[in-house]
Amino acid sequence: MSYLGVGVSPGNVPVNHGTILRVIDRRVRLAELVLRCLICLFGVLAAVLVGTDAEVKEIFSIRKKAQFTNMKALVFMVIANGIAAAYSLVQLLRCVVSMIKGSVLFNKPLAWAIFSGDQVVAYVTLAAVAAAAQSAAIAKLGQPELQWMKICNMYGKFCTQVGEGIVSALLTSLGMVAISCISAFGLFRLYGGNNTKTCAR
Amino acid sequence: MSYLGVGVSPGNVPVNHGTILRVIDRRVRLAELVLRCLICLFGVLAAVLVGTDAEVKEIFSIRKKAQFTNMKALVFMVIANGIAAAYSLVQLLRCVVSMIKGSVLFNKPLAWAIFSGDQVVAYVTLAAVAAAAQSAAIAKLGQPELQWMKICNMYGKFCTQVGEGIVSALLTSLGMVAISCISAFGLFRLYGGNNTKTCAR
Repeated sequence: MSYLGVGVSPGNVPVNHGTILRVIDRRVRLAELVLRCLICLFGVLAAVLVGTDAEVKEIFSIRKKAQFTNMKALVFMVIANGIAAAYSLVQLLRCVVSMIKGSVLFNKPLAWAIFSGDQVVAYVTLAAVAAAAQSAAIAKLGQPELQWMKICNMYGKFCTQVGEGIVSALLTSLGMVAISCISAFGLFRLYGGNNTKTCAR
Repeated sequence: MSYLGVGVSPGNVPVNHGTILRVIDRRVRLAELVLRCLICLFGVLAAVLVGTDAEVKEIFSIRKKAQFTNMKALVFMVIANGIAAAYSLVQLLRCVVSMIKGSVLFNKPLAWAIFSGDQVVAYVTLAAVAAAAQSAAIAKLGQPELQWMKICNMYGKFCTQVGEGIVSALLTSLGMVAISCISAFGLFRLYGGNNTKTCAR
């Protein structure tokens, strides 16, 4: 993202301020790039860990299979993390293209689109991980007052892998929270200082 | 919140831009005030609806009581909504004081504190409502593959009231999402245009 070329006419910014701005701009871009990479990796990892998880047990000659589709919250989490990974990949390509091209014109509609996308993905991934963690807690500890029995003493391997998937999904959503702060910074700084005119549009 | 007095020297802003800025400032303040009021109301409503919910049934002369403490997710939601309501009340008082006093000096540390607080409360309330909704879905529909039976056909009144509480909690968290966008706007616009010097601090 290039924050440099927006609302700041090179003519009326002193040289040292321009240099500071360029340094901040480079750091923000780098942080965004690293975060989007990590989100993509952890998103895929969470979806694969949970999506491929299955365990079969034979209880009194009855074959029983535990898989992620048994819990709606896990299905929701796999979908949300898949979307987050795909979205981050697209944004990553945008970041790389803008870095190769150098200082790209950074306009408000694009900043609004990125901000909105990041916010939605951050909230959806967080909601998904919260719902999945709640289901996992019931599976691990049970809810005896409601006769919901714990299942993790039976499907130990399945539960461990789901746990690892939830940790990856949590890292994805924390990454998205950080990214949504960066994109809020990228958008709303366009409304500061001299940019009051565009603010009213 | 007064965005007007920050980073904009009245001397170098044309009159029409100043007027536009003042109009936007007033609208943002009003939106913040209304949203904080609503969050406070819905937060209290959600906490009271779920916290006071209980239903007793006699099954084969065994007395069984359903209450919110039976589900950890509902306890978490009651606490999160209580915190959101109390936090919004404090922020509401700050808004009213700043409106009575008029144009208050709006500094970056305060803007950072409000932004951080709003972000944390928004994510916590959303996570709480997602976890509670997941528990409620299991209670309503059951999870037959895991032998978790639905309980809402037994405790109908209890479930209806919990549902109303979850809707209130959802409105609280959506309000917090909107408020966290407003406070991001209030903070990051301080880093735009002429404010590049302070940006580097």
